[in-house]
Amino acid sequence: MAPSVHSSSSTLLTSDTDERYANVNWEELEFSLTPTDYMFVAKYKQGETFSEGNIVPYGDISISPCSAIFNYGQGLFEGLKAYRTEDKRIRLFRPDENALRMQNGAERLCMTAPSAEQFIKAVKQTVLANKKWVPPPGKGSLYIRPLLIGSGAMLGLASAPEYTFLIYATPVGEYHKVSSGLMNLKVNHHNYHRSHYGGTGGVKSCTNYSPVVKTFLEAKSLGFSDVLFLDAATGRNIEELTTSNIFIVKGDIVTTPPILGTILPGITRKSVSELARDIGYKVEERDISVDEMLEAEEVFCTGTATVVKAVETVTYKDKKVKYKTGEEALSTKLYTMLTDIQMGIVEDKKGWMVEIDGCDD
Amino acid sequence: MAPSVHSSSSTLLTSDTDERYANVNWEELEFSLTPTDYMFVAKYKQGETFSEGNIVPYGDISISPCSAIFNYGQGLFEGLKAYRTEDKRIRLFRPDENALRMQNGAERLCMTAPSAEQFIKAVKQTVLANKKWVPPPGKGSLYIRPLLIGSGAMLGLASAPEYTFLIYATPVGEYHKVSSGLMNLKVNHHNYHRSHYGGTGGVKSCTNYSPVVKTFLEAKSLGFSDVLFLDAATGRNIEELTTSNIFIVKGDIVTTPPILGTILPGITRKSVSELARDIGYKVEERDISVDEMLEAEEVFCTGTATVVKAVETVTYKDKKVKYKTGEEALSTKLYTMLTDIQMGIVEDKKGWMVEIDGCDD
Ligand SMILES: Cc1ncc(COP(=O)(O)O)c(C=O)c1O
Ligand SMILES: Cc1ncc(COP(=O)(O)O)c(C=O)c1O
Repeated sequence: MAPSVHSSSSTLLTSDTDERYANVNWEELEFSLTPTDYMFVAKYKQGETFSEGNIVPYGDISISPCSAIFNYGQGLFEGLKAYRTEDKRIRLFRPDENALRMQNGAERLCMTAPSAEQFIKAVKQTVLANKKWVPPPGKGSLYIRPLLIGSGAMLGLASAPEYTFLIYATPVGEYHKVSSGLMNLKVNHHNYHRSHYGGTGGVKSCTNYSPVVKTFLEAKSLGFSDVLFLDAATGRNIEELTTSNIFIVKGDIVTTPPILGTILPGITRKSVSELARDIGYKVEERDISVDEMLEAEEVFCTGTATVVKAVETVTYKDKKVKYKTGEEALSTKLYTMLTDIQMGIVEDKKGWMVEIDGCDD
Repeated sequence: MAPSVHSSSSTLLTSDTDERYANVNWEELEFSLTPTDYMFVAKYKQGETFSEGNIVPYGDISISPCSAIFNYGQGLFEGLKAYRTEDKRIRLFRPDENALRMQNGAERLCMTAPSAEQFIKAVKQTVLANKKWVPPPGKGSLYIRPLLIGSGAMLGLASAPEYTFLIYATPVGEYHKVSSGLMNLKVNHHNYHRSHYGGTGGVKSCTNYSPVVKTFLEAKSLGFSDVLFLDAATGRNIEELTTSNIFIVKGDIVTTPPILGTILPGITRKSVSELARDIGYKVEERDISVDEMLEAEEVFCTGTATVVKAVETVTYKDKKVKYKTGEEALSTKLYTMLTDIQMGIVEDKKGWMVEIDGCDD
């Protein structure tokens, strides 16, 4: 690994004057794409993992029209963030969990995944190469998107003969800050489910996302923030949102749907459950009917992009229920606990943060 | 459209001596990838369809790592065939049906599709540019693969801002000839379903395919030809195979599962149903339980690649049932009726075949 190969090289694609930071208006960052300087790319054959991957200038990649990703949707993605601390360190949140989830997904889709070590090293290289794009402390984070795609050419349905592991990164703002508007969810009681037993709902497969765009856009056009999907088997239990997990709170019990292959095992979900237990809540993982949710005191959702976000209202058929939000809400407390660790405001006693060396120039 | 622009041009990528045919061993064609000379590519913005697409040399395409296809599986494909007749014509089988199915898929995945006219014209251009790759009469066909992919870059879940409509083609043999081995199916009674109500099972979305590779490869490794999926809702009814539809026969009744959003509305399925009616069979579309299938006299499957193929055995749990195959089987008759029309051996009274002009050099 050559952490600083590109750090002050003349090949940097941006030419802002401030060496430490790219020319970005950090105050106005949203969760959208700001192309950065470099990306990581490794190609390898089925059954082998890569021995060499490279940091290359960010840009389009070249791929066969007969690739498994184009024809048969053989692709996985991950999402994690790097944070800059006040004392100039750059740290990742639980990248080992993302590495593991990609491996589980690869097993489900018959793909060959990078080892956890390769995954984390490549993530670090990507962040280092783009370190001027990591927002200043408190202004956001560098969102990192590892992709594993079946890039090899083939005709009949099969696993791809070649895989591409690619990582790009983009600075994102905290548009899901507790203060900046709350979530208003629409329960999808019609027949668009997200997932079914024996499907791919439990892994971060690209195949779980394009199918929900329609319902998502319909809900947005009605003024909702997101859709809450019900399980396909009974149509009675809540599962998750398009890209985040859900929790309900009643008294000192925090409940979230169980991991049975139909919902994504969120890393934020897991972390927030642990934090809730730390402050004396009982955390249960079990089926939650819509009716039970409508009786809850508080509802919130979690995800890497979302962080922890209070749900203000849930609309189910023509019923609209309002939940506790604001300073008194558990979600506000959990949001602060989590982001304090991520941003280095409190000490990380969990061992969740992974330091990237070579960041202080 | 400039049908013969490339026909005898020096830019042809193969340099075989026989002008009319590429240098292929036609006797040994399988259903696998033989790269041809040209492909069709059109790019266009969301909400618009393309005004111009081009025949370009076959090869890799350049695409953003942030494309909707890579990250969120926003992609559709089609599959159809061009046949060369004894009298030197080249004809397509029902391309209007593929165009329509792509439009239905695009609606489901919130994509912008080419018009039927654009679709068919582009298919014709692709075939013309590659006409030396259309096998001689009776030796196979040119398999044409139109792709519609979300190629525009984005970060959050959405419809892509840009689409790419691409068509490639490859000569394929009739490996699914009735004579060359029969199908032995494994009923997937475990919890890997293919589809669920409100999912994308009814459209030719790439997202339906990588999720079934695991079950498919497991069945293959046990010596089966393919997997027969049961419905996710009840686990009792048969749906379809990984890439073909299924029929059962008992007396003069031919039955196939209904189109309710969980199985692909196959064009071969539709055509074969019509042919069966023409020769006096009653064709029913309704739920078929595994038990009913096990009691059938004959089982067969249909698809563009498969054509019409007799199922010799079905294995359900530890029960293995053998069905009628061979000269006496209805599937043999339907195979002949269909391929006679496709190959121009009998007159096409249905209006199914679409002529490609400019083929006789
Ligand atoms: C479907 C879905 N559920 C939940 C999550 C939250 O997971 P995590 O907390 O690991 O980001 C995500 C996104 O990451 C997701 O795509
Ligand atoms: C899942 C599935 N079912 C059925 C079919 C058969 O459809 P068609 O006869 O239009 O080729 C296909 C393939 O084309 C398929 O992918």
